[in-house]
Amino acid sequence: MRTSIATVSLSGTLDEKLAAIAAAGFDGFEVFEPDFVGSPLSAPDLAARARDLGLTVDLYQPFRDLDSVDPDTFARNLVRAERKFDVMEQLGCDTLLVCSSPLPQAVRDDDLLTEQLTVLADAAQRRGLRIAYEALAWGAHVNTYRHSWKLVSAADHPALGVCLDSFHILSRGDDPSGIRDIPGDKIFFLQLADAPAMAMDVLQWSRHYRNFPGQGNFDLTAFGTHVQAAGYRGPWSLEIFNDTFRGSDTGRTAADAHRSLLYLEGEVARQVAADSSPVLFEAPAASPLEGVVSLRIAAGPGKDDALRTVLGRLGFRLAGVHGAHDLQLWRHAGVTVVVDASPGTVWTAPGLPAHLPVLTQIGVRSADPESWAARARALEVRARDVAMPGADGGTDTDVVRLDVTDATSLDVRGPASAAAWEAAFELYPSGRGWEDDVPLFTGVDHVGLAIPSDNWDGVMLLLRSVFAMEPHEGLDVTDAVGMLRNRALEEPGGGADPLRLTLGMVPGSVTSHLGAARRGGIGHVAFGCSDIFTTAASMRARGFEPLPIPPNYYDDLDARFGLPRALLDRMAESGILYDTDGDGEFFHLFTPTVGADFFFEVVQRVRGYRGYGDANAAVRLAAQLRAM
Amino acid sequence: MRTSIATVSLSGTLDEKLAAIAAAGFDGFEVFEPDFVGSPLSAPDLAARARDLGLTVDLYQPFRDLDSVDPDTFARNLVRAERKFDVMEQLGCDTLLVCSSPLPQAVRDDDLLTEQLTVLADAAQRRGLRIAYEALAWGAHVNTYRHSWKLVSAADHPALGVCLDSFHILSRGDDPSGIRDIPGDKIFFLQLADAPAMAMDVLQWSRHYRNFPGQGNFDLTAFGTHVQAAGYRGPWSLEIFNDTFRGSDTGRTAADAHRSLLYLEGEVARQVAADSSPVLFEAPAASPLEGVVSLRIAAGPGKDDALRTVLGRLGFRLAGVHGAHDLQLWRHAGVTVVVDASPGTVWTAPGLPAHLPVLTQIGVRSADPESWAARARALEVRARDVAMPGADGGTDTDVVRLDVTDATSLDVRGPASAAAWEAAFELYPSGRGWEDDVPLFTGVDHVGLAIPSDNWDGVMLLLRSVFAMEPHEGLDVTDAVGMLRNRALEEPGGGADPLRLTLGMVPGSVTSHLGAARRGGIGHVAFGCSDIFTTAASMRARGFEPLPIPPNYYDDLDARFGLPRALLDRMAESGILYDTDGDGEFFHLFTPTVGADFFFEVVQRVRGYRGYGDANAAVRLAAQLRAM
Repeated sequence: MRTSIATVSLSGTLDEKLAAIAAAGFDGFEVFEPDFVGSPLSAPDLAARARDLGLTVDLYQPFRDLDSVDPDTFARNLVRAERKFDVMEQLGCDTLLVCSSPLPQAVRDDDLLTEQLTVLADAAQRRGLRIAYEALAWGAHVNTYRHSWKLVSAADHPALGVCLDSFHILSRGDDPSGIRDIPGDKIFFLQLADAPAMAMDVLQWSRHYRNFPGQGNFDLTAFGTHVQAAGYRGPWSLEIFNDTFRGSDTGRTAADAHRSLLYLEGEVARQVAADSSPVLFEAPAASPLEGVVSLRIAAGPGKDDALRTVLGRLGFRLAGVHGAHDLQLWRHAGVTVVVDASPGTVWTAPGLPAHLPVLTQIGVRSADPESWAARARALEVRARDVAMPGADGGTDTDVVRLDVTDATSLDVRGPASAAAWEAAFELYPSGRGWEDDVPLFTGVDHVGLAIPSDNWDGVMLLLRSVFAMEPHEGLDVTDAVGMLRNRALEEPGGGADPLRLTLGMVPGSVTSHLGAARRGGIGHVAFGCSDIFTTAASMRARGFEPLPIPPNYYDDLDARFGLPRALLDRMAESGILYDTDGDGEFFHLFTPTVGADFFFEVVQRVRGYRGYGDANAAVRLAAQLRAM
Repeated sequence: MRTSIATVSLSGTLDEKLAAIAAAGFDGFEVFEPDFVGSPLSAPDLAARARDLGLTVDLYQPFRDLDSVDPDTFARNLVRAERKFDVMEQLGCDTLLVCSSPLPQAVRDDDLLTEQLTVLADAAQRRGLRIAYEALAWGAHVNTYRHSWKLVSAADHPALGVCLDSFHILSRGDDPSGIRDIPGDKIFFLQLADAPAMAMDVLQWSRHYRNFPGQGNFDLTAFGTHVQAAGYRGPWSLEIFNDTFRGSDTGRTAADAHRSLLYLEGEVARQVAADSSPVLFEAPAASPLEGVVSLRIAAGPGKDDALRTVLGRLGFRLAGVHGAHDLQLWRHAGVTVVVDASPGTVWTAPGLPAHLPVLTQIGVRSADPESWAARARALEVRARDVAMPGADGGTDTDVVRLDVTDATSLDVRGPASAAAWEAAFELYPSGRGWEDDVPLFTGVDHVGLAIPSDNWDGVMLLLRSVFAMEPHEGLDVTDAVGMLRNRALEEPGGGADPLRLTLGMVPGSVTSHLGAARRGGIGHVAFGCSDIFTTAASMRARGFEPLPIPPNYYDDLDARFGLPRALLDRMAESGILYDTDGDGEFFHLFTPTVGADFFFEVVQRVRGYRGYGDANAAVRLAAQLRAM
């Protein structure tokens, strides 16, 4: 499949954009007119630059407001089109995107509109060019692909076809299956964009919030499957208007962009015949994940006391210390936690100790870590984001490390990983009796990560493409100090022990200095248990005191749910909060904040409750704010 | 008029909010339930805290989803209401806000709904309490104030009245004049919120983007006038859901909040009879403004060369130097520019030289500066934001300085100001002939200021309340490195020489370190002229070279407007850009960026053009980005 991208999707000068597009592996690009108009590169210069980079100039766009009920205006617009044809000839670009008009003077008579499109197509044909006509979702008269195809079909002109843009179709809730009825060679161009679900004016939504396939909520797999079935042979191109991308690192965004097309191809490939044409890319499958088995938490030199104390009260025992670095191995209930009090990591930059502890590694068991490396590479994850720590003689072998954020990696750990890792530690002799400890937990229920806003979409794409995780409905929680954007992702088919991550958006960069209260207490590890009252009692016996939840909360629970007073009292005693999703119930408690804004949670899911107790986030955040 | 505010409007713990509410001069507050539920203060504690602070507890809110077609659910909701009445009794709060239900099971039969409201009102009356019923804009059945009043009227219950919320009424485009038909004593509560014009789902708009009266686009003056005419006697209260406020300084937001009510009272007072009851506050009028006469620009020590060079090419002459500090006085066309190369200002903090030069003072002539100080104080502008530099023996007398942002002040300069100010400078002897210079400009056309996002609403309120400036339609400009929010404000009735400011939003704080490209070139001074080609020629004769505008831009102008080629060539020669608003035309050119991101502009307005050439912003920004 040929890949393309509109220059508007990236940040920087036109020169910088082209270099990044080529480096990311695209075959061509769409010239977004304002990028060209504002550039010192003449059209021949730009054509030469594209040639040098091995890129084709696939589309010139947009040409707006062609049709008009006023003949003089239409004539004037034809002159304007001829000037653009001049540019296209110099660019070596044969297709002009013409969008339906949103103006009051737009033609609303299909016959007249077909006539005006035909006049333009004639003019294009005389130059050896062609017109791809697109229905804008907010077009005054033409705003569905069925309508644009109806006009193109009626014109029946060799230089006139349709341009399909997934945003304009899916944002309206239109059924894309009719695309199958359009002859593939009359689809002149395909633009792909995803977008988060937002209840918002569609124009604003389109101009500011589009993102790459796999970053939003549209069903692009179904969309792409219809296009493939129609027999479309042109490039799959991304046209993404996104304020964050326009302010982000150009190369990184371009790499995400290309990965998003690979991801989409793979999803579509699973829906269509194996011998489909064009041939679609599919990333190799990897061995199944088998649950979180280890965590590494950086506390900072000399700052690990609070973390050690909390771990002890959660039932963990110190199992060993590292021979060379200030690392401790803690264990409980089948989970290993490495407390990292060593210096020299990124988190010791000036101003950053305030944000320690931070979770740096999440270890997930899988039979064949190498298969994950292969899958990640096939999906063009940057080489620096795929590490094999044991490869160059390290002691941590049989593990593949994938960076999720600047701070945190997902480590896929093979069968030999635990033994290899532990070899670097002086393990305390067993036999102190704590192998007989009754496990307080069933394992790690979920892990919460703070994601910088400018990296949010990239992380979402990585988790969905490489790890095939599925996003669940997120909730924007408004707390005492601002709004938090939350999104949970879950490993599909993960059975009783799926990998669950909850992402919380923080402004800017995770490594920037930001008041802890403003971080909202996102980074955390939640342990699951089968009886939270028993677990809480065991923790209390170890000296644990939960995050204090005010009595008003329990009075409100009483008012809302009429829970038995005795139950409310037991919950209040242990700082346990409550939620329900109808049938299922959720009980959870929090540790006090450790360091700046890290915490642990203990959760019990009853009757298949699938959420995360978001309804209680405001109460938790208020309690954390007071404790600061 | 009594003033009140909902606790949700502010940031911080409930304790912090109450202290700020009292300090800002409010008479009372609304308890936002989640603030109370998450607080360790019991209801009696909170009542005592309010008493200590001299605040009344005006409203408990919100009570949601009362009515239901399912009798069991309604019965359960009555039990829930009784629990809330318990809390209200302890709080000493007699009014509960009940909103219309947005749920599918909401009652859609007006008779049944009236009956359920009556049952609740009976229950409230037994406790000596009352119910204020509000129509949510997104209510399933009841979503207009006319409907809520119809039900309340039908119930005819002494403990049941309506709550009017300007957001819920104006966001739907409803006509508020029917409020005059509601008896004042049946309006139990009044909530006021402004909001920026946004094409957005009304629920999201309401939850995240409300702001204080005078910060948005609603006609709250008309709204308040109707309420006043109805004879409402309760508090005017603010209920503002705003993500930025919830993350901002509590005291500053509370002060803005109270000022916004004073501003609104003053606006309403001008519409109603002088003897209206309740009596409305009006700020004293100040002497008219008479145009920008001076500017002070901080360049930083040793960094003033580029600024001096540009000023010289703009026709300015060095008229003197300061006796004690590194300040130079430059003059041309009736405008004085002080170049500040002295150290020791806020702008010399680490990382900040990248953002110099910055405009620190805008001097505007007026007959009686003192009247502006009196007006600002009456509108509760913070004392530290109203300075009279000459008051404590300084040499800059007959001036009142009002801080607009952390970086920039508006200085109202009286008739004696110029002479007093100049006394501190060693003026060069005149007679070098430059008094005979032909002025290149007619004066300052407008000034562009970079406004930190978390201060945007506060600045808007200050300019609208104290300076009575009127906002014009703004444009979000998407450039190569992100989106810019722009808004222009103009002094009404300012004749040929009105004070015009264009505000551009920048993320975070103006004093924070931020890549210059990301600042987008906002801070600038635009000089007006009557013939831009003549002015440009004079500037060229002084060695001036404009910001380079690429040839592609002129080709595009040709395509769009078919301007004469000779005109296009003349424009290209001087880097002049073009815009039209139909009849009016606009010509403008830019200086290269001075320092990090400051620039000057020269503009010519033809036939009453009122805009700012925003259509050319992307081309300008691309040129500035390339020049970096």
